[in-house]
Amino acid sequence: MTSDSGRRSITGFSNPTVKALRALREKKHRKREGRFLAEGLRLLTDARESGRLPETLVMALGREPHPLLAALEADVIAAGGEVIETSADILGKITGKENPQAVAGVFAEFDTSLAAIDRDRSPIWLVAQALRDPGNLGTMLRTGDAVGAGGLILIDDCADPFSVEAVRASMGAVFTQQIAQATWDEFLPWLRAGQGQLVAASLRDAVPYRGAPYAAPCFVLVGNESRGLPEEYEAACDLRVTMPMKGRADSLNAAVAAAVLAYEVLASLEG
Amino acid sequence: MTSDSGRRSITGFSNPTVKALRALREKKHRKREGRFLAEGLRLLTDARESGRLPETLVMALGREPHPLLAALEADVIAAGGEVIETSADILGKITGKENPQAVAGVFAEFDTSLAAIDRDRSPIWLVAQALRDPGNLGTMLRTGDAVGAGGLILIDDCADPFSVEAVRASMGAVFTQQIAQATWDEFLPWLRAGQGQLVAASLRDAVPYRGAPYAAPCFVLVGNESRGLPEEYEAACDLRVTMPMKGRADSLNAAVAAAVLAYEVLASLEG
Repeated sequence: MTSDSGRRSITGFSNPTVKALRALREKKHRKREGRFLAEGLRLLTDARESGRLPETLVMALGREPHPLLAALEADVIAAGGEVIETSADILGKITGKENPQAVAGVFAEFDTSLAAIDRDRSPIWLVAQALRDPGNLGTMLRTGDAVGAGGLILIDDCADPFSVEAVRASMGAVFTQQIAQATWDEFLPWLRAGQGQLVAASLRDAVPYRGAPYAAPCFVLVGNESRGLPEEYEAACDLRVTMPMKGRADSLNAAVAAAVLAYEVLASLEG
Repeated sequence: MTSDSGRRSITGFSNPTVKALRALREKKHRKREGRFLAEGLRLLTDARESGRLPETLVMALGREPHPLLAALEADVIAAGGEVIETSADILGKITGKENPQAVAGVFAEFDTSLAAIDRDRSPIWLVAQALRDPGNLGTMLRTGDAVGAGGLILIDDCADPFSVEAVRASMGAVFTQQIAQATWDEFLPWLRAGQGQLVAASLRDAVPYRGAPYAAPCFVLVGNESRGLPEEYEAACDLRVTMPMKGRADSLNAAVAAAVLAYEVLASLEG
């Protein structure tokens, strides 16, 4: 290992830094360190352009030079961060991918309290309850970015938005969408302390989702992948809407339901 | 191992039948055997009600009795199939899940040639090109069921619709949606030999997706998760539509894009 003003190279699999970075793929280590991993130049460039720099940048030796990578490296050094060069094999061990991209970054986790949410920022917010699949969670962040949502509020026991899978599926939206984690008993008083229409995708006492009276700021709520929303949560909503279900199934994938509904809300509010 | 008119029990992990069933989690073995696995009473009941019975039913010893499971078992025996009882541990080894559901089935793969598609069956069809993620594939099948699509046509090198992940994500739609696999050079002449509007989610030369002139039978085409559709494929489409992208990203998750577009087509054709 050599070191020179924020730069060093690591050549051994058993290096403690490699172990520490690799451990960030597990939730308990992320929570203990308050750090998470993001991989790939595109994701890291999205982060940089959103004002988020990694504390540590890990780059594979033998990567192709790239002006965006050079700019990222310079910004990380200028901000007092660390740049580590290592082999593609070790980078793969850190990220858990057989074909890792040439660069990964370690970021400090953000504040995910409801206090971090500025509801005046956007007319649309996504809300998920007990969402268990990190891919669905990341996809909801990505959809939120696309519809101009302010962010994603995670109710009760959801997957970790800072997991490698969620970060990857978000396609960079983890850096641009505001994210909060709260219990239902925290969320509802917070919501009612200000403006906000809570809309559930539901089968009970629901109106057709097209042409429903959406109002900004509109909070689009979807439930757990298996069980849907608890009945009392649905009852607390201002509006319950339903999408056509023409086939045998009675529900959509949670991220799909959120997207179909969010695009309808967007069209309604802009129309 | 004991056997009695289509019923037997297996108690050993190293039993050849266990190995053969477990191997069906891998594509090469599925293709060689022409068989695939589906897990869970709900999925198997969906299959049964759609007229698809497993050739082999594997049930965990000590499971809760259930009338739908009893009906399934009786139908499998009546159809000349086989019912295997085994431990929950062995069932978990077969399905690759730590907490397997109490039942799994082995099905013969269906005909997935374009000849299997009856385009007059439905006004909406989903088409995916080089879709790599089995979860996205299964989600598209599930969405297809919901919008009343006839099925899913897989173009070029897509994930396997009979993989455990795709079957699971389809929530039973793998048994109700027609599925075809074809190259682009096979698909386009087939499409043009009959009625059919090919619609691409696209950024090039596209009109807004809302209010676009959709026509039945409408074939909704989405491209690969990373690269999108090849330009020449988009050029061959009858209609190119675009969804609002309000944020930093320029695309949606493929299954999300298909769903938002398919629900718009449904509303347009019914409206």
